[in-house]
Amino acid sequence: MVGGGPGAFIGVVHRMAAALDGEFELIAGAFASRPERSREQGRALGLDAGRVYGTWREMAEAEAALGEDRRIEAVSIVTPNHLHHPVAATFLNAGIPVICDKPMTTTLADADDLCDTVERTGLTFALTHNYTGYPMVKEARHLVRSGRLGTVRKVVAEYPQGWLSTRLEETGHKQASWRQDPDRAGGSSAVGDIGSHAHNLVCYVTDLEIDAVFADLSAQVPGRVMEDDAGVLVRFVSGARGVVMASQVSTGEENGLALRVYGDRGGLIWRQECPDRLHLLFPDAARQTLTRGSPWLSAAARHATRLPPGHPEGFIEAFANIYRSAGRKIGAAIAGVEADPLDRDFPDHVDGARGMRFIESVLKSDARERWVGMGGDP
Amino acid sequence: MVGGGPGAFIGVVHRMAAALDGEFELIAGAFASRPERSREQGRALGLDAGRVYGTWREMAEAEAALGEDRRIEAVSIVTPNHLHHPVAATFLNAGIPVICDKPMTTTLADADDLCDTVERTGLTFALTHNYTGYPMVKEARHLVRSGRLGTVRKVVAEYPQGWLSTRLEETGHKQASWRQDPDRAGGSSAVGDIGSHAHNLVCYVTDLEIDAVFADLSAQVPGRVMEDDAGVLVRFVSGARGVVMASQVSTGEENGLALRVYGDRGGLIWRQECPDRLHLLFPDAARQTLTRGSPWLSAAARHATRLPPGHPEGFIEAFANIYRSAGRKIGAAIAGVEADPLDRDFPDHVDGARGMRFIESVLKSDARERWVGMGGDP
Amino acid sequence: MVGGGPGAFIGVVHRMAAALDGEFELIAGAFASRPERSREQGRALGLDAGRVYGTWREMAEAEAALGEDRRIEAVSIVTPNHLHHPVAATFLNAGIPVICDKPMTTTLADADDLCDTVERTGLTFALTHNYTGYPMVKEARHLVRSGRLGTVRKVVAEYPQGWLSTRLEETGHKQASWRQDPDRAGGSSAVGDIGSHAHNLVCYVTDLEIDAVFADLSAQVPGRVMEDDAGVLVRFVSGARGVVMASQVSTGEENGLALRVYGDRGGLIWRQECPDRLHLLFPDAARQTLTRGSPWLSAAARHATRLPPGHPEGFIEAFANIYRSAGRKIGAAIAGVEADPLDRDFPDHVDGARGMRFIESVLKSDARERWVGMGGDP
Amino acid sequence: MVGGGPGAFIGVVHRMAAALDGEFELIAGAFASRPERSREQGRALGLDAGRVYGTWREMAEAEAALGEDRRIEAVSIVTPNHLHHPVAATFLNAGIPVICDKPMTTTLADADDLCDTVERTGLTFALTHNYTGYPMVKEARHLVRSGRLGTVRKVVAEYPQGWLSTRLEETGHKQASWRQDPDRAGGSSAVGDIGSHAHNLVCYVTDLEIDAVFADLSAQVPGRVMEDDAGVLVRFVSGARGVVMASQVSTGEENGLALRVYGDRGGLIWRQECPDRLHLLFPDAARQTLTRGSPWLSAAARHATRLPPGHPEGFIEAFANIYRSAGRKIGAAIAGVEADPLDRDFPDHVDGARGMRFIESVLKSDARERWVGMGGDP
Repeated sequence: MVGGGPGAFIGVVHRMAAALDGEFELIAGAFASRPERSREQGRALGLDAGRVYGTWREMAEAEAALGEDRRIEAVSIVTPNHLHHPVAATFLNAGIPVICDKPMTTTLADADDLCDTVERTGLTFALTHNYTGYPMVKEARHLVRSGRLGTVRKVVAEYPQGWLSTRLEETGHKQASWRQDPDRAGGSSAVGDIGSHAHNLVCYVTDLEIDAVFADLSAQVPGRVMEDDAGVLVRFVSGARGVVMASQVSTGEENGLALRVYGDRGGLIWRQECPDRLHLLFPDAARQTLTRGSPWLSAAARHATRLPPGHPEGFIEAFANIYRSAGRKIGAAIAGVEADPLDRDFPDHVDGARGMRFIESVLKSDARERWVGMGGDP
Repeated sequence: MVGGGPGAFIGVVHRMAAALDGEFELIAGAFASRPERSREQGRALGLDAGRVYGTWREMAEAEAALGEDRRIEAVSIVTPNHLHHPVAATFLNAGIPVICDKPMTTTLADADDLCDTVERTGLTFALTHNYTGYPMVKEARHLVRSGRLGTVRKVVAEYPQGWLSTRLEETGHKQASWRQDPDRAGGSSAVGDIGSHAHNLVCYVTDLEIDAVFADLSAQVPGRVMEDDAGVLVRFVSGARGVVMASQVSTGEENGLALRVYGDRGGLIWRQECPDRLHLLFPDAARQTLTRGSPWLSAAARHATRLPPGHPEGFIEAFANIYRSAGRKIGAAIAGVEADPLDRDFPDHVDGARGMRFIESVLKSDARERWVGMGGDP
Repeated sequence: MVGGGPGAFIGVVHRMAAALDGEFELIAGAFASRPERSREQGRALGLDAGRVYGTWREMAEAEAALGEDRRIEAVSIVTPNHLHHPVAATFLNAGIPVICDKPMTTTLADADDLCDTVERTGLTFALTHNYTGYPMVKEARHLVRSGRLGTVRKVVAEYPQGWLSTRLEETGHKQASWRQDPDRAGGSSAVGDIGSHAHNLVCYVTDLEIDAVFADLSAQVPGRVMEDDAGVLVRFVSGARGVVMASQVSTGEENGLALRVYGDRGGLIWRQECPDRLHLLFPDAARQTLTRGSPWLSAAARHATRLPPGHPEGFIEAFANIYRSAGRKIGAAIAGVEADPLDRDFPDHVDGARGMRFIESVLKSDARERWVGMGGDP
Repeated sequence: MVGGGPGAFIGVVHRMAAALDGEFELIAGAFASRPERSREQGRALGLDAGRVYGTWREMAEAEAALGEDRRIEAVSIVTPNHLHHPVAATFLNAGIPVICDKPMTTTLADADDLCDTVERTGLTFALTHNYTGYPMVKEARHLVRSGRLGTVRKVVAEYPQGWLSTRLEETGHKQASWRQDPDRAGGSSAVGDIGSHAHNLVCYVTDLEIDAVFADLSAQVPGRVMEDDAGVLVRFVSGARGVVMASQVSTGEENGLALRVYGDRGGLIWRQECPDRLHLLFPDAARQTLTRGSPWLSAAARHATRLPPGHPEGFIEAFANIYRSAGRKIGAAIAGVEADPLDRDFPDHVDGARGMRFIESVLKSDARERWVGMGGDP
């Protein structure tokens, strides 16, 4: 991994995502621009110190020099935007596949150059436009491709956020700072950071090609250099029309990415904050709500699903909270220290026995057709 | 891990949950009642064959015989209900902490016995009443404890499911079969399987003690032995009243666990299928919706949170889908084989360059105040 | 109309409902228990003073004495519960059809007696269990009757309110006072006032006959005489089970009547606070949401519908606000007085011209493919 | 009333809205472009034949000629758009106040001319931009004006409909025909019909002045003359930005008018299809949902409210369904004919007695702490 040092947000997400299915194990990294910070993070992650590097250039060279059976099989790039291009190109040229956070680069010229490198090396390059990883987004694409909506006429993609409604970048906030710094973020803030997700979602779901755009960007927060609000009208080659909105000053909004697609036979609505549901609209029948995990969904949606319907994907995280706390309490016991009080909060045998008392009382009440006390058998 | 063989549902969830934070690594298991199935699963998980056992008794003995620095630090029990008691007791007595799926046992007497064992050994015993692991459930408990709702008067806990609305247990469906088999599930189906979650949630959030219950259980599906529907009236010691509903024949419902708590100063509503939100009601002010990840939540809720507001916890899984597919494609390339077409579905350099073209076109349109074609500079 | 004097809530609703379709015109009344209050209300409603009576007995006698072509064609009874029986019986015996607020009487014996009177006189008796008047409730009944849900197994009807979470009846609050006064409300508060609606809704939609009930009533507010919370388990003759909840102390709830019906082929959910939608659940297909006004609904639902889909029925009230304010401003102008500032809030010619300027600017921008100022043609 | 003949939609709404509060009584009309259709409608409405006119010109002359105490006090204009201007001007010049459906005219020049007429005559002119009649829209305006959201930066108004996603205008559909006929609708379809509502809503709620617009209009349905889809970018004089969308080809959408306003201190969201709720978002506190009827709302919102919270405004219509059916059954009985079966669907004495039996059984079960049969006292 390159990037993802102490305090970074997206690096942690990449690491959890990589761990979830056991496809990847993290074994090397250059986690920060300052070598000592990189080593600090490597220690925190329990890595072999010999595989924690001070710089990404050093890492690329050293890993490439290792034999094929020892070196990393892929690198994950989670740096600020301006480093995506040089880091990715360097690792690709060293023969190592790349998983890279978006946007791919900070300029179109760099992106074209990187495309050439990928084509030339023939290596895998994955870009974490993560919203297309949702099962119901895959279902949406399937529905459009299968003709269920007919010919697409109108697409609305919006991405309202409110976190930059103050000059957070002036407060030392790490993520706000680089996103509002043209040198590190590239020429755009709202469009580059979130508008690019909205655009990618439109392309992924509809397969439509954009003919032309008309845009109005503005910095709504006084004193801000880069745009924090964008409205874009879109003309597709097919004649369909679209609207793409991206805003970092929609005060109080969290991460409201949403997509609406209307064809001549039906429409669909997907909202990222409620990702397990896909709404279908028809001119001549009741609205439908498809839920993640349903056996009648497409192969692509089912392939991307780990849990049955009604178990929101955060279900895993709720489970993981119990495992994390229990693991820490067990670890503390082994180490002979006290566990953090916050990590004692998991159900234990007392809860279990209380539950069994409830079940037995319920069975007894039903059998006797009367109230049954929970204090024991009367 | 004991249980969690091929085709099991909850074993997979336990494994993903354990992997998420890097607190646990799976190194040993007795995964199925038939030894060859256990070994098959061990191979699939890439475990050392010497740590994959034919039976859980064999595993407990062998692991206990290993030195403290080599043996497992905890065991996860994900078998049908009737094995929870003997397996847990055996491992505890062997000095190994336990993480056990719920319900704890199949009878209250067994539960009391297991409590004694836990107390005697002094080891950690965690029961995966996973719904209490949700951050907003922790917030709900915090709000009740802090007096925000005042004195609790009324509690409604409901758990409608529809998956047993046909005699699924007659079709060879593994999970339905043992849940409708009194020998393996214990004396209760709906109450034991899901009513126990609703009960646990009530206890966790309100801290109220139940005085007495009145229950009406029925098997709604013709020919079924165990109850598939339960209505329970509850009287709390404090004088508050409650209703607990559990149903496996609420046709079309997925996993509709929900809790409502009303005090004399306010009420709260939480729904498991939309777990990131907690609704608060007041007699004299606007309704509020608390969202997971907000900085103003309690320490317990924040401690249980991995992602910022607006990023539903399934966000990790969406990310993981990209990692999984990319990992498989990379693996296939190394192995010189074709990747599954379903695993070629992740964003790549072409998507990245297309995104950069969009961003640059948008910037250009805004600057020139006219439509800009996506095909290149005119 | 009998009842509905100054300060009454439900009398106003009855008058608006009667006016909406032009089927009724209000021409006589005994509006309050004190004759001078009755006459005050009659004046406020612009009635002929000769048709405003001091008591309902006087009204029944006088109206009966008028010829068939002059007397009222029906009486609307909107008094506290204890008067429903004597007033209804008296008018029926005088040959006048009755529209009566619910519950019908305060005891079952009185209800049986009133049934005899209705049967004997052969006159129309309508009871305003108004929730069955919603189009989507009629659709729900249609769906159950048509077999779309299969055999009904489970019914959950709930009616949480929070308005009596304090001792409002001690504050002089008119409606709270009589509802918590056994002499005027009958033997029950929560069950009589709102549980009876939930019960009626169950009967109306499912046509199921109740075999037996088990109930737990309590007064949760200290010092209160009548119950303010009720949990009721229901066994239907068919073997289906039900839960009916009614609560006036669900703090912060407004008027949360909801019905869920699950059969062996599907389920339905209807919530009164979002009355235009009916949700259908299936074991083997996507969820559906039926919306009021859709042409594919049943004849009964369409018959009860005045507006097309997407126009919530409050649409009429929003329209009426403009008419009311305009009417009052016109009336004030005729009378040569100032209209209430709150009644000057309706769109006028200035809004109209501003709208036309917007439309023309939009057309011009589209035609010229550039920004067009709203200040006029540049 | 001018317009609102047989088969018209909006005329019926205007008549119900006018009747609701008793401020208006319909006494005269020119209901259709063909005199015999006008007279047919007059008969259906029970009007005095002498006040039903063949043309609106005739009506204006005749009514003006009546004395002040006999002639209509206001005229309601519900014709296709192209008649708004001449009809309104004629009645105003005849000294009669006007309530006119929107848009005001078909050209800005006509609108300016009509403004002059209104100013000159000093008479009331109300334009039924009905969405501003909703109580929660009035609350939204109050919140913006009171500074609760701070300085407004971003406004999104959208109005998706799907009813014109086929060439409905070719099928003889009355409303579709004139809306897609430039001679009767004016130069615009989507913008004139619904975009004008969205624009009016923006103006009403925010008080912002528009500086310039950039628009992209298209006819998405093949063969259609006028635009059925519009995307408009808006620059306000204050520097705030906006997006206005209007679409008649958003297949499956019903009447999805929605407004979002974001200031530097908070944001608000209102959706017409759920009009009783207004959502508030803050950067540093929980989201709030304001509900119509709450006592803590502004005077303007409370003034526009007829019912308490939790009683959706369709509550009146549900009530009215009972009144309408009972009225028709009573009328049929008087006339000695059978009522339409659909009008026998209202609760009667049998429902009432059944309800009383339920209440008494519930009270008995609670008192005896056992199941109580509904068949009578055992």
